[in-house]
Amino acid sequence: MPILLDTTNAPVLQRLLDETDTSGLTWTIEPGGAQALPPGEIRVAGIANLERAGPQEISFVANPRYQSQLTDARAAAVLVTPEVAQAYRESLREAGRLDHALTLVVCNSPYLMFARIGQWFDKQIHPQPPGSIHPSAVVDPGAEVDPSAHVGPLAVIEKGAQVGPRARIGAGCYVGEGCRIGADSVLHPRVTLYRGVVMGARCIILSGAVIGEDGFGFAPDPSRAKGAWCKIPQFGGVRIGDDVEIGANTTIDRGALDDTVIGNGVKIDNQIMIGHNCQIGDHTAMAACVGIAGSTTIGQRCSIGGAAMIGGHLKIGDDVFISAATPVHSNIDKPGQYTGFFPMTEHAQWERNAVAVRHLATMAKRIKALEKK
Amino acid sequence: MPILLDTTNAPVLQRLLDETDTSGLTWTIEPGGAQALPPGEIRVAGIANLERAGPQEISFVANPRYQSQLTDARAAAVLVTPEVAQAYRESLREAGRLDHALTLVVCNSPYLMFARIGQWFDKQIHPQPPGSIHPSAVVDPGAEVDPSAHVGPLAVIEKGAQVGPRARIGAGCYVGEGCRIGADSVLHPRVTLYRGVVMGARCIILSGAVIGEDGFGFAPDPSRAKGAWCKIPQFGGVRIGDDVEIGANTTIDRGALDDTVIGNGVKIDNQIMIGHNCQIGDHTAMAACVGIAGSTTIGQRCSIGGAAMIGGHLKIGDDVFISAATPVHSNIDKPGQYTGFFPMTEHAQWERNAVAVRHLATMAKRIKALEKK
Amino acid sequence: MPILLDTTNAPVLQRLLDETDTSGLTWTIEPGGAQALPPGEIRVAGIANLERAGPQEISFVANPRYQSQLTDARAAAVLVTPEVAQAYRESLREAGRLDHALTLVVCNSPYLMFARIGQWFDKQIHPQPPGSIHPSAVVDPGAEVDPSAHVGPLAVIEKGAQVGPRARIGAGCYVGEGCRIGADSVLHPRVTLYRGVVMGARCIILSGAVIGEDGFGFAPDPSRAKGAWCKIPQFGGVRIGDDVEIGANTTIDRGALDDTVIGNGVKIDNQIMIGHNCQIGDHTAMAACVGIAGSTTIGQRCSIGGAAMIGGHLKIGDDVFISAATPVHSNIDKPGQYTGFFPMTEHAQWERNAVAVRHLATMAKRIKALEKK
Repeated sequence: MPILLDTTNAPVLQRLLDETDTSGLTWTIEPGGAQALPPGEIRVAGIANLERAGPQEISFVANPRYQSQLTDARAAAVLVTPEVAQAYRESLREAGRLDHALTLVVCNSPYLMFARIGQWFDKQIHPQPPGSIHPSAVVDPGAEVDPSAHVGPLAVIEKGAQVGPRARIGAGCYVGEGCRIGADSVLHPRVTLYRGVVMGARCIILSGAVIGEDGFGFAPDPSRAKGAWCKIPQFGGVRIGDDVEIGANTTIDRGALDDTVIGNGVKIDNQIMIGHNCQIGDHTAMAACVGIAGSTTIGQRCSIGGAAMIGGHLKIGDDVFISAATPVHSNIDKPGQYTGFFPMTEHAQWERNAVAVRHLATMAKRIKALEKK
Repeated sequence: MPILLDTTNAPVLQRLLDETDTSGLTWTIEPGGAQALPPGEIRVAGIANLERAGPQEISFVANPRYQSQLTDARAAAVLVTPEVAQAYRESLREAGRLDHALTLVVCNSPYLMFARIGQWFDKQIHPQPPGSIHPSAVVDPGAEVDPSAHVGPLAVIEKGAQVGPRARIGAGCYVGEGCRIGADSVLHPRVTLYRGVVMGARCIILSGAVIGEDGFGFAPDPSRAKGAWCKIPQFGGVRIGDDVEIGANTTIDRGALDDTVIGNGVKIDNQIMIGHNCQIGDHTAMAACVGIAGSTTIGQRCSIGGAAMIGGHLKIGDDVFISAATPVHSNIDKPGQYTGFFPMTEHAQWERNAVAVRHLATMAKRIKALEKK
Repeated sequence: MPILLDTTNAPVLQRLLDETDTSGLTWTIEPGGAQALPPGEIRVAGIANLERAGPQEISFVANPRYQSQLTDARAAAVLVTPEVAQAYRESLREAGRLDHALTLVVCNSPYLMFARIGQWFDKQIHPQPPGSIHPSAVVDPGAEVDPSAHVGPLAVIEKGAQVGPRARIGAGCYVGEGCRIGADSVLHPRVTLYRGVVMGARCIILSGAVIGEDGFGFAPDPSRAKGAWCKIPQFGGVRIGDDVEIGANTTIDRGALDDTVIGNGVKIDNQIMIGHNCQIGDHTAMAACVGIAGSTTIGQRCSIGGAAMIGGHLKIGDDVFISAATPVHSNIDKPGQYTGFFPMTEHAQWERNAVAVRHLATMAKRIKALEKK
């Protein structure tokens, strides 16, 4: 659904760019050829991928590899780097088709600018709701909800919880005793925050996420039965920085004695599990289905591929990239990419190779023996 | 609990089969020996596995391998193929025990017929509730709920949502703005549908599933901080076909610009993660804990084993079978089975082999050198 | 947050130990040196790790390896084994610093005693709420809630469900028809129990867990379409023993015909998936993100590492330890540790080795050929 606004509400290109947050961006409009509308008449009703964008939609080319798609594009305007702009003009000149030129917005970072324009549209379509508490919500009299905050239907907010300015608590959320939710943070429907979770500003928590549940801590208790366990109560908390996104059905344990800590700007996808006492450094991003066992520290600006599994009590440094589906069982000090998974093949081939894997150590010895001959 | 109905409500065999949906099935009752009840007197109060089935329960043999279990079976009747029926009769004849013969229902597909008989019992035990909206549900006046639909306690249905005939919305569900739920579809308790999710007829969504949450899309934003990310709003939707089942705590992202699409008859188990802009072909089935990264297309009639992890931007063709626990990092064009995981052994053996794995490339070179000698 | 009680409510050491459940434990207080407070004046306001514990907190040394940390410790008292106590005293004597000795609680199992003291504090901080049903909860008149049980806001309890003495049902929980919840069991907020789930005493179910959803059972139904599936209704139940903990967003399928069974004292972490008809033996513990396919039986006292994936229809014996991230595709009869995952390396090294893995069977043959020369 790329058309986001109807024509009446769609801004002209210049106004759209003026109203977009362009901090860190530099840009200029480069008018299209004779067949394009003049910039003052281009209305931008939505955003779209280049091959789908129609004459009311803005698009982008972030990767020079896709530059050739510009030839057939019909977009209202396209965000490009100076390099792509120049190559595009040259190819048009060579083909003698300069009058077909698209309107370009030449900027230092088209992908980022595209994201920011998307945010402009998002604000038009989903404006901040007025401060209000739905009559069906159950808000403890000892909770403090900022008058500008919005609490959805059937949400529960317990004693001592603080909900900051313009924060939004979705339908069916549970906000435990003493939680603190910073300004402009958003809980989507059906999120659980256990007691005492502290969250900064502008966080986004997706539906079904659970934050602050007990960590998995048990002491062997043979006095009850052979192999029995005794629960270790979990007294630590969870502290979450600013600008954190936490995905759907993700779970983050509270600490055992100290806190579990999620740094600023961390992006956590769906169905991720973060164990008690983990510390995740600023701006680290992790794709879906990642698991991190307890007491592991991960540095800043790391990227963790989907379904990577990271053991407990480890230290991963800054700027580390773990490939998808990789199990991590040791510390990583050095920035770089790390990988470990068995390569997929047709099943019959895998079967033959898997048999050999079981004899690898022996094979190594046999090679050594042969070399000694 | 195989006894599903009490004797008063239990149908006789003939009536049960007459009332069962047998489209695509052919069947005949073959009366048992002198010691069995005549078909007109057999009451079927439930269904059970052959070794557990008592004289009031119907059972089945889908696999000829289990035919020998018929000898000791006590079931009211057993669904079998013609081949199994014949082999069973012959073995009885040889043993001179034809009077002990069980009542058989000889049919072309015993397993399917067993499923359909199960559905008949299911309808008796869990009849369609009358159309109604629980007084505790919060239904926006701008939502359209069919009078024959059932809305459970504490469900929330937002503006513009449409709930079709005989659909059921479980307790504590959240149905976002503009969602469309087809006829006879069922949301179990505590499901989230974000705005604009469209679902066909006869779908079943299990508890805790979240559908239509934002995909994981961020542009690097160094203007904020080294390594910082800027959220890319997700404007696409989720379109789900007819007869789809989606498991407990599964998450399906909405598309970034285009839609995420789940075909007809797709079966998705629990705790599965489907990224934004994925397309899943008709009748594909995936077992629990599978993850599929964004923008991947999967063909029709595929089987994805549990905990298989499929990378992003891939194309998997029709009729592909991915083994459990296999990571998929490349396109698959050809039907067939594909596998990739490290075979489990005793830990000490694994340790020795894992050391050798790290030197595999070197081992290959050393073999080459030896061969050149 | 290690300080759990303010000074007024903090017990003196002797009273704390007298009131702690010390069944199976033997212990004696060994007074500290001249610089320590006399036991009768030590107030214990909280518990903490040894390096963080201040003079109002009790701590422990479970592992003799950490004994040296005692030298700089400032804790109110430290739980230690007789061996650690003796070594500590000797090191002080050698250093001529006996007057600096900490107050010790010498006991047979410091870690267990620490857990039990934690439970004492937990009870002070989170006392059992009085029996009550929140007015916003929707409790069917045909449900039986013990007068001493607590039902939180916006919970739903269906017909025929039984909630035992002192049980607690968290906000937003759904307890289906005919469920039985034993004495002192606790459902945290937003848990789903489908119809008929039976649970023993003292269980703890974390937020977002779903128990008793349909197992994943389908029969091929070519009568509808090539590759189509027919749902097999799931009539079995889920039976859960005493003292079971089930983690956040974990899912446990109901059985197809028979029950899924979770033994006594089983500890299940977050985001675990247990398929239909599984049986888990007493005191088995499994870390987060584990998946167990249907009809698998796991013995008593097993440990399953995080993200291990266990196939269907398997038998795992007692006292088996599966390493994290290990796929299990065969039965395991013998106690011991089992492992299988591809060891992580730097990506470039992995790439070289992964190529060689695809040719392993050939390499094995080439070695054989070389040996025959």
